[in-house]
Amino acid sequence: MALIVQKYGGTSVGSLQRIKRVAERVIKTKEAGNDVVVVLSAMAGETNRLISLAKEIQPHPDPRELDVLMATGEQVSIALFSMACIERGVEARSFLGFQVPIETDSAHTKARIENIKAEKLKQALASGIIPVIAGFQGVTEGENITTLGRGGSDTTAVALAVALGADVCEIYTDVEGVFTTDPNICPKAKKIDKISYEEMLEMASLGAKVLEIRSVEFAMRYGMPIHVRSSFTDAPGTMVVEEDESMESILVSGVTYSKNEARITINKVPDRPGIASKIFTPISDANIVVDMIIQNTREGDLTDMTFTVPKPDYETALDIVKRVAKEIGAEKVQGDTDISKVSIIGVGMRNHAGVASKMFEILANHGINILMISTSEIKVSCVIDEKYTELAVRALHEGFGLEER
Amino acid sequence: MALIVQKYGGTSVGSLQRIKRVAERVIKTKEAGNDVVVVLSAMAGETNRLISLAKEIQPHPDPRELDVLMATGEQVSIALFSMACIERGVEARSFLGFQVPIETDSAHTKARIENIKAEKLKQALASGIIPVIAGFQGVTEGENITTLGRGGSDTTAVALAVALGADVCEIYTDVEGVFTTDPNICPKAKKIDKISYEEMLEMASLGAKVLEIRSVEFAMRYGMPIHVRSSFTDAPGTMVVEEDESMESILVSGVTYSKNEARITINKVPDRPGIASKIFTPISDANIVVDMIIQNTREGDLTDMTFTVPKPDYETALDIVKRVAKEIGAEKVQGDTDISKVSIIGVGMRNHAGVASKMFEILANHGINILMISTSEIKVSCVIDEKYTELAVRALHEGFGLEER
Repeated sequence: MALIVQKYGGTSVGSLQRIKRVAERVIKTKEAGNDVVVVLSAMAGETNRLISLAKEIQPHPDPRELDVLMATGEQVSIALFSMACIERGVEARSFLGFQVPIETDSAHTKARIENIKAEKLKQALASGIIPVIAGFQGVTEGENITTLGRGGSDTTAVALAVALGADVCEIYTDVEGVFTTDPNICPKAKKIDKISYEEMLEMASLGAKVLEIRSVEFAMRYGMPIHVRSSFTDAPGTMVVEEDESMESILVSGVTYSKNEARITINKVPDRPGIASKIFTPISDANIVVDMIIQNTREGDLTDMTFTVPKPDYETALDIVKRVAKEIGAEKVQGDTDISKVSIIGVGMRNHAGVASKMFEILANHGINILMISTSEIKVSCVIDEKYTELAVRALHEGFGLEER
Repeated sequence: MALIVQKYGGTSVGSLQRIKRVAERVIKTKEAGNDVVVVLSAMAGETNRLISLAKEIQPHPDPRELDVLMATGEQVSIALFSMACIERGVEARSFLGFQVPIETDSAHTKARIENIKAEKLKQALASGIIPVIAGFQGVTEGENITTLGRGGSDTTAVALAVALGADVCEIYTDVEGVFTTDPNICPKAKKIDKISYEEMLEMASLGAKVLEIRSVEFAMRYGMPIHVRSSFTDAPGTMVVEEDESMESILVSGVTYSKNEARITINKVPDRPGIASKIFTPISDANIVVDMIIQNTREGDLTDMTFTVPKPDYETALDIVKRVAKEIGAEKVQGDTDISKVSIIGVGMRNHAGVASKMFEILANHGINILMISTSEIKVSCVIDEKYTELAVRALHEGFGLEER
């Protein structure tokens, strides 16, 4: 008998019919002799509906009140879901964030979980009741309702699993698991059976939107296994676990891409100490996250500086940089948005040389020019012309033998 | 400077446009130098939408979970309303039942308010913030969410007004106030400027659905003045207050009717002690509320017993009575649903004889046969053929001079 936390996303509870089907799945898990704790998202589309209501009243909604509004989405799901279980003769009870309680800081719309008191949930389990918890929401010390930001229900599920000492946290979604790359681009993409937290973090932050990144960080910190799987089939999905030896034999676990990048270059910057800070401090002050930064030394005391920012922040960043360039006496600022980033990820890289150069070779063999490169211990990323994105992904997927996994 | 509790019903906050307009009204009251506390219902139609979702999952929804579900309706209203105030530059803060807290018993879907801790609201007022409270909901000692039943937001508003020591509780609705009778039936119906709690209770329970009956009881117990008025105009509405001498000079304040009655007669019941209890105990055990009861003595030791029940309970009541009739040896059971009840109400009746007989005379002059009569200190009710309802209401309204008020 295991203690299992099951989290179902918005698509899985997107209609009354689906809520009933998910209830059947939960009951089956319980009847197989397990203790089950359920975490639910809002029904698909509901959070967006609520946000657009808010924006009609207030273009920049008050964060505290927006949280009060958005929290109703999960409240509806857990009430209906509990009814579906009870209708089937199985005891279930809904828990809102404040009822558990799931205590967070007071950063409305992007709060962080600080503490979960699991006593009431344990009591419910001991009485044979299925606790059904609202994902995405919590409560501050001052009893204000908070939400955890997009995808926050994953974090709720993992944090609950840790607090309860669960054996596994199952994240149900509308895909079968984590794939070696985007199946929409590369039909030969394969489901990954087992992946390390580190790899998953790189996959998630690079655009494989299966798991919310904070939930993976949380699981990694406490060693909680996550099972990402589909609520529409019984097939096992992808286990996200601590790195083990078997993983190291695989050089590359996945290929990801992001079209959400733009590039800005400052030419002929006077190369003095403190110059990078002069450029990047005003950008970070504008809440813009800079991803890759490359600095090329040029003749004399001049240098070129190139970096990437999220596409929606491109215009703002460009304006800032043009202003700074004048102040620091740089010659020219240029930028473009027709770029994308392709990455290969794998813990096996740590112990194997030559993975990066193989990547460059594959891209070169397909006539794809590399504009920027950045590497980390388990990742190599290349910025390329956006139009080559799909070609690059397919080439890398094939080149590293991922379709035979 | 006064402390005013303003409650807005579902129609008044039925759209984003209306929410904005109501916010303007609240702000105007505040800017006139008053402290304002706002209580809101769910947007019109929302509670019914949620209930029908629940019923698709569970034909008889679990009461605890139904409360969790229904409570989201008011949560949405108060968040959007607070945003509307903040957007106008006026500080406002939403409060859910558990945040006030509004403590209730644990009778889900029909809970009773037991205690309101008003400290947080007083703090908000002292800081110049408009507290915006979710009507209709509360929280139990065990932190379960409860709802107060249909019209419960009125009770929330009055209970808050009492807890805060407000000067008046304004109940905003989509009509201009309490009328001498239903204007849909009698175009000459007049708005009543001032009415006593007792009269309002009789009006409410007899079908003038402007105020929820429990809220009037609550206001009467604590002497809290209620001002029933329209959110669509600035005109004063109806003050519901303690009886004063001016009211006694008016014989009849209003004419009400109810078509929601059915009549059951048991003929030739053996007239023994305890026979009434034999008939009515099983009916009340079935949760059916009996309204009027009339017993006529017949020849010998036989009696006829006639009573009314709500129309939806008619079939069930009839079945019960037929069973009981056999047991007690009554001759026959008959019933009909084509009846209605018309009533005249007025505290002036207490000190004036002849009001009832004038009512009978007016009905007789219009050829309306009276089937049953019941009287109380401030009310006379007659059961008549349903088809005469409108005629009777108009005749009584004119006969007692209500159109000249």
